[in-house]
Amino acid sequence: MKNIPVILMGCGGVGRQLLQQIISCRTLHANMGIHLRVVGVCDSTSYVLAPDVILAGFDDNFLKGLCQIKSDGLPLRNCMEHGTCESGSSSEFMTKLTDIAAHLHFVLVDCSASSETTKVIIEVLHLGCCAVLANKKPLTGSLEEFDKLFLHPRRIRHESTVGAGLPIIASTNRILSSGDTIVSSLGSLSGTLGYVMSEVENGKPFSEVVKTAKELGYTEPDPRDDLSGMDVARKALILARLRGIRLEMKDIKIYSLFPDKMGPDAMSLEDFLKNGLPMLDDDIEERIKKASSNKNVLRYVCIIDTKDISVSLMERPKDSALGRLKGSDNVVEIYTEQCYSDKQPLVIQGPGAGNNTTAAGVLADILDLQDLFS
Amino acid sequence: MKNIPVILMGCGGVGRQLLQQIISCRTLHANMGIHLRVVGVCDSTSYVLAPDVILAGFDDNFLKGLCQIKSDGLPLRNCMEHGTCESGSSSEFMTKLTDIAAHLHFVLVDCSASSETTKVIIEVLHLGCCAVLANKKPLTGSLEEFDKLFLHPRRIRHESTVGAGLPIIASTNRILSSGDTIVSSLGSLSGTLGYVMSEVENGKPFSEVVKTAKELGYTEPDPRDDLSGMDVARKALILARLRGIRLEMKDIKIYSLFPDKMGPDAMSLEDFLKNGLPMLDDDIEERIKKASSNKNVLRYVCIIDTKDISVSLMERPKDSALGRLKGSDNVVEIYTEQCYSDKQPLVIQGPGAGNNTTAAGVLADILDLQDLFS
Repeated sequence: MKNIPVILMGCGGVGRQLLQQIISCRTLHANMGIHLRVVGVCDSTSYVLAPDVILAGFDDNFLKGLCQIKSDGLPLRNCMEHGTCESGSSSEFMTKLTDIAAHLHFVLVDCSASSETTKVIIEVLHLGCCAVLANKKPLTGSLEEFDKLFLHPRRIRHESTVGAGLPIIASTNRILSSGDTIVSSLGSLSGTLGYVMSEVENGKPFSEVVKTAKELGYTEPDPRDDLSGMDVARKALILARLRGIRLEMKDIKIYSLFPDKMGPDAMSLEDFLKNGLPMLDDDIEERIKKASSNKNVLRYVCIIDTKDISVSLMERPKDSALGRLKGSDNVVEIYTEQCYSDKQPLVIQGPGAGNNTTAAGVLADILDLQDLFS
Repeated sequence: MKNIPVILMGCGGVGRQLLQQIISCRTLHANMGIHLRVVGVCDSTSYVLAPDVILAGFDDNFLKGLCQIKSDGLPLRNCMEHGTCESGSSSEFMTKLTDIAAHLHFVLVDCSASSETTKVIIEVLHLGCCAVLANKKPLTGSLEEFDKLFLHPRRIRHESTVGAGLPIIASTNRILSSGDTIVSSLGSLSGTLGYVMSEVENGKPFSEVVKTAKELGYTEPDPRDDLSGMDVARKALILARLRGIRLEMKDIKIYSLFPDKMGPDAMSLEDFLKNGLPMLDDDIEERIKKASSNKNVLRYVCIIDTKDISVSLMERPKDSALGRLKGSDNVVEIYTEQCYSDKQPLVIQGPGAGNNTTAAGVLADILDLQDLFS
């Protein structure tokens, strides 16, 4: 039985779901000859560590208790009541991780949303450990950091950074390793903006659709976090860098769905929803009509060609994969020189958000590293 | 630099394309720290083997010569003129392979269409080697053979057995290793039948569409090889077995598009095309009308639920991925318990045939085995 030590950073929705899935997959993974031994967990303020990380790990009852504590909104140190463990602040943990990496070959899993994890991930990778990321931030920092993360590309996996568990990264890597050249990747990589753009197409005003999406919990608490296109741009940058396109976030042309004067610095959320948003309706309506007269539909799309990334509203043919998109699905169309032509791209579509599917992507990534463990 | 020895069985269109891609990817793979060292090749009658398989392999000029010889329709032994190598009959080669496997850790690649390769694949896997299959036959023999092939599941890859290079197997494996349960997989896995069914929908007679498909080279020389559904059934069986569904070919309900009395044993190809085929037009036309009145379209689909496989003509909703299919694309819809619901399946679509994409799938599989080589 292969014993793979796992250390988890971030135990919000995705991290908690991951721990639960690890527990519920015990028999399945044992049949595959694998035991995932969780030895440490941290959140944004504190950590817990198993007393003997080299030989043992947390038992499943402890992990269940930990999930319950986090789901109750309590701090991690409350775990001390559930079993023996070491605890401390999350900043101490970062130092501790490199100490552990010198003695233990483990998988560091980043399910946080922090930009502070990059340094420690690079350090443990350098010491021979592996990393699995659901967190986009480490991959969208400087190119220098990106290069360090991919110095040993087999040790790092990050499927859930783009389209949650959808096999977009794995498929892109397969295309690249077969020597085919990707000419362009087109994607609708925001479930929120996908939903909004397919609903406005049916004649509803943009402002109403955004408000409904917010009520349904499809948007961030401040919908401008979605409407700015920044999240889509991060995903696009990851896909581009994977293909060897050397760009920084600042190089991306991002079309925000609201003007600067309605930004969070200039307008309160309440004011934006009540007064700002409705002022955008006419422009969107006009663009939809124009698209329709061209037999197209309007989509919020990222396009990564051979050199550039653009993230913006764009007309797409009604009968293309992007044009047919409904609801909150994500979709990518990949065009290559050899296998996937203009008329027959590779299309991958499905739900691109949610704790379940994001955690599933992380877990599949961890299992995919198994050959690097003895 | 990792040096991965490769031995290839079958050098028809796909095998030849694979050799060409290996050669053209030299720089790319070197940047990944990999050198694919081809040490042996066989076709249905003979083999060539590098003089020193442990330390050296064929140089790229020899491989280019080999591709030229095969493309000219000549036997492999003509390679003797292009460089130093050992040669002999393909049956001798099978014995030789197990001898080599005792001393060399290599990847055995099966790009043949033979049902005679299973035994040697099992033997070399048992000796610690790896295998990559584009050939469906070994995976659709008895369950006993299948179990032996997957005794060490990490050592075998077979993406190109279903949907050519489309990432259907890789994605299915990711879903399974994350502990999600696949409730059903639906697929249109024959480019030929996909083309035929989307064309008849536009009002053309079935017999005319089949004849056009034959003229365009979309069908096998005898179109009944496609219309029988056997090829789709093989792919469905592979997908089912991957999910742990223990069925044999004989357990699959296969709906053939022609009756037994028009089979190759009962009717010549010429007779079938001229007299048999047109007799099928009315029935198909009627079924299409019925589907249309239900707001559906008619597709040739395989459905793998939790226990059974069916391969037949079926009505599918017009706005589903299968319903929207046009031309010769393949598509699968995967529904699971946790991540991919009734309304949001995982959809993978693209060209599911052709030497380029099949060879690309094989090459990505070989690269995916790199962590098993030191």
